Amino acid sequence: MPVLETVPAAPASIDDVRRRNLGRLLQLLHDRGPTSRADLTALTGLNRSTVKTLTEDLVHARLVRETEPVGRGGAGRPSITVEPESERVHVIALDIGVAHLTALRIGLGGVVLDRRELRQGRADYTVRRTVARVVRLVGELLDGAPAGARCVGIGVGVCGVVSDDDGVVRFAPNLGWVDVPLRSVLADRLDTTLPVVMGNDGDLGARGEHLRGVARGVPDVVYVAGEIGVGGGIIVSGTPMRGVGGYGGEIGHMVIDARGPVCRCGRRGCWETAISEEAVLRTTGAPPGTTFLQVLEAHRDGATWTRAGMRRVGRSLAVGVGNLINVFNPGLIVFGGTVRHVFAATEDVVRESLAGVLAAPGEQVQLAVAGLGDDSVAFGAAELAFAQLLDDPLGTMAALPVVARTGA
Amino acid sequence: MPVLETVPAAPASIDDVRRRNLGRLLQLLHDRGPTSRADLTALTGLNRSTVKTLTEDLVHARLVRETEPVGRGGAGRPSITVEPESERVHVIALDIGVAHLTALRIGLGGVVLDRRELRQGRADYTVRRTVARVVRLVGELLDGAPAGARCVGIGVGVCGVVSDDDGVVRFAPNLGWVDVPLRSVLADRLDTTLPVVMGNDGDLGARGEHLRGVARGVPDVVYVAGEIGVGGGIIVSGTPMRGVGGYGGEIGHMVIDARGPVCRCGRRGCWETAISEEAVLRTTGAPPGTTFLQVLEAHRDGATWTRAGMRRVGRSLAVGVGNLINVFNPGLIVFGGTVRHVFAATEDVVRESLAGVLAAPGEQVQLAVAGLGDDSVAFGAAELAFAQLLDDPLGTMAALPVVARTGA
Repeated sequence: MPVLETVPAAPASIDDVRRRNLGRLLQLLHDRGPTSRADLTALTGLNRSTVKTLTEDLVHARLVRETEPVGRGGAGRPSITVEPESERVHVIALDIGVAHLTALRIGLGGVVLDRRELRQGRADYTVRRTVARVVRLVGELLDGAPAGARCVGIGVGVCGVVSDDDGVVRFAPNLGWVDVPLRSVLADRLDTTLPVVMGNDGDLGARGEHLRGVARGVPDVVYVAGEIGVGGGIIVSGTPMRGVGGYGGEIGHMVIDARGPVCRCGRRGCWETAISEEAVLRTTGAPPGTTFLQVLEAHRDGATWTRAGMRRVGRSLAVGVGNLINVFNPGLIVFGGTVRHVFAATEDVVRESLAGVLAAPGEQVQLAVAGLGDDSVAFGAAELAFAQLLDDPLGTMAALPVVARTGA
Repeated sequence: MPVLETVPAAPASIDDVRRRNLGRLLQLLHDRGPTSRADLTALTGLNRSTVKTLTEDLVHARLVRETEPVGRGGAGRPSITVEPESERVHVIALDIGVAHLTALRIGLGGVVLDRRELRQGRADYTVRRTVARVVRLVGELLDGAPAGARCVGIGVGVCGVVSDDDGVVRFAPNLGWVDVPLRSVLADRLDTTLPVVMGNDGDLGARGEHLRGVARGVPDVVYVAGEIGVGGGIIVSGTPMRGVGGYGGEIGHMVIDARGPVCRCGRRGCWETAISEEAVLRTTGAPPGTTFLQVLEAHRDGATWTRAGMRRVGRSLAVGVGNLINVFNPGLIVFGGTVRHVFAATEDVVRESLAGVLAAPGEQVQLAVAGLGDDSVAFGAAELAFAQLLDDPLGTMAALPVVARTGA
């Protein structure tokens, strides 16, 4: 890009350099888990004594611990292994969906320590009720943490358009929310000064899968998610694609059938109208009262009444997937949320229908279901919540509220 | 991203720093045109005497010249103005399309110095004939340059999938080319050691508009281009989106009408089948022998026979545009190539049909025709060709072949 680089920054102070190096070291341990000091030295490019000193600082802050390795690999003394204090340092990660509310306690290093899930009914989406449920789940998770454990943040994924600057859910059509100041409501009701960080569920699902799931290490990824609606998140060259206002990735509202059924967005034939849970029920002509998962189960068990409809759903899934392949040339398309069950049930049809996609990008793409199952979004939300700690490990720990219990 | 930063580089040598600063200064002048030394000082953050010395180096290499400003603005002495030697330092930029072959001589600072264009017939796309034409046009452009002018590179946009590593056109379906080693053939036939750099026309069109056209300064841009086929290029957060193999941006092969006509790619209802030149002819039921531009001209003149068809084309254009808005949340969508004439002829219908797009991204997008008209791609190709000079101004000038005339 021809834009001029900004002015070279003034030389960083010793404190800045130390903080940055501590953050890099902790990020590395968070990403990789237990790692030998020798590997940390090689990976950071810092010298051995610096890594030793920095590690000691992190040990002192009780963010990591050092252990002697049992065996010895290759020549020389075995190196000491450093590992994150996953049981002790954790975040709360929330996924507020239409049909579910999931809350996880996730330890440093991406370890699930505890998990709560509620199914929500259609009538339950008032902000007051949702917040009350969140407060209860977060309270249970924090109360279940061992003595001395420290919560360093709360990350929240919401099935809507979220403005992270001010923590407001601008628009969550399937919840019926408009301009809900969720961050301040949550901070208030949880009676906490912990950072509460928010994001769109599609974006966070993509981030979760990219950091901890099947998309790890893949630079260009499309994450397709859905239950009632269909959304997604896009990773371009390793970086989440936001768009000019942070609304990018609404792949469920890509028209694939201009003469198709009217979508709740107002257009005709959006991808969502052909592959959502409701579309599966409609297209298979499921008897009233049958659930989406029951249809897929019947289909898996060889029912004849689901066959033609599921084939149609699979072909529609393939049309949208083909579009994403041609437009993004991704290395991987990940199916998350309940769309992953649709993909799993129609995979043969999808792959067969993709024969018409452009050859070059078609050869380069893999298709996979979410590695983190129902928790892709929560894992993405956890990363949001860990970000401050990883930016400034010692400063963040020093500034934590003394008691991280809820006031509920 | 949690990927660990690479090892901090060893302190740059004085030569490295000087080279980088010369490149930054020249890039700035290339982007902005004539700029006062005072502004250069402010924009680079370098000190005044450094800017003076660097500018003198660039003057000595005859890349820029200094002029006294005529008037004086505000208090104090008027600052000396530095401007790129646009007449003297230039590149050759080529756009190899299906129906046209365009060649420009573009000077440092993005000034068009000379321009040649050929219309191509359908039977003319053999590599041999195309290369012969290119050699002739390049020869004319170089012969027309003033004595002492220096060509620093040749940039080529091709309507196909291009591998820039080895300069091979992998696949250009509308030309019928497969695995054509165009770079080496061109370098050989032009008898030059000048760098020949290549790219896909959609990507280069996006780049041209982003650097020199209507998309200047807009971080998230979708460029839609087309004549026979419809392609495009995407800018995400200021950076061209490549995809995992460089094939991203094939937005013409986004299915918008799953029950629509069969596309040459094999799928049904690709956007291209509804908005290309051929689609305009078909949808309006144009009499045999009528050209695409004649249809649009008749439509502009108020013909009745074009009305219903053009309305349909406009609605299809809007469906794809709506998809791009929802998927990318761009700040701007630019219509280039001959698709810009389709947009101009159907703009009312397009805007009216876009009412159904998602509200938030819909409010943030602008629609515009290419600011560089037929030359978006050539301008993008020119930037490719200037890249080496802007990276290392003095080194590149020193290494130039003494005579840059063709052997043709």
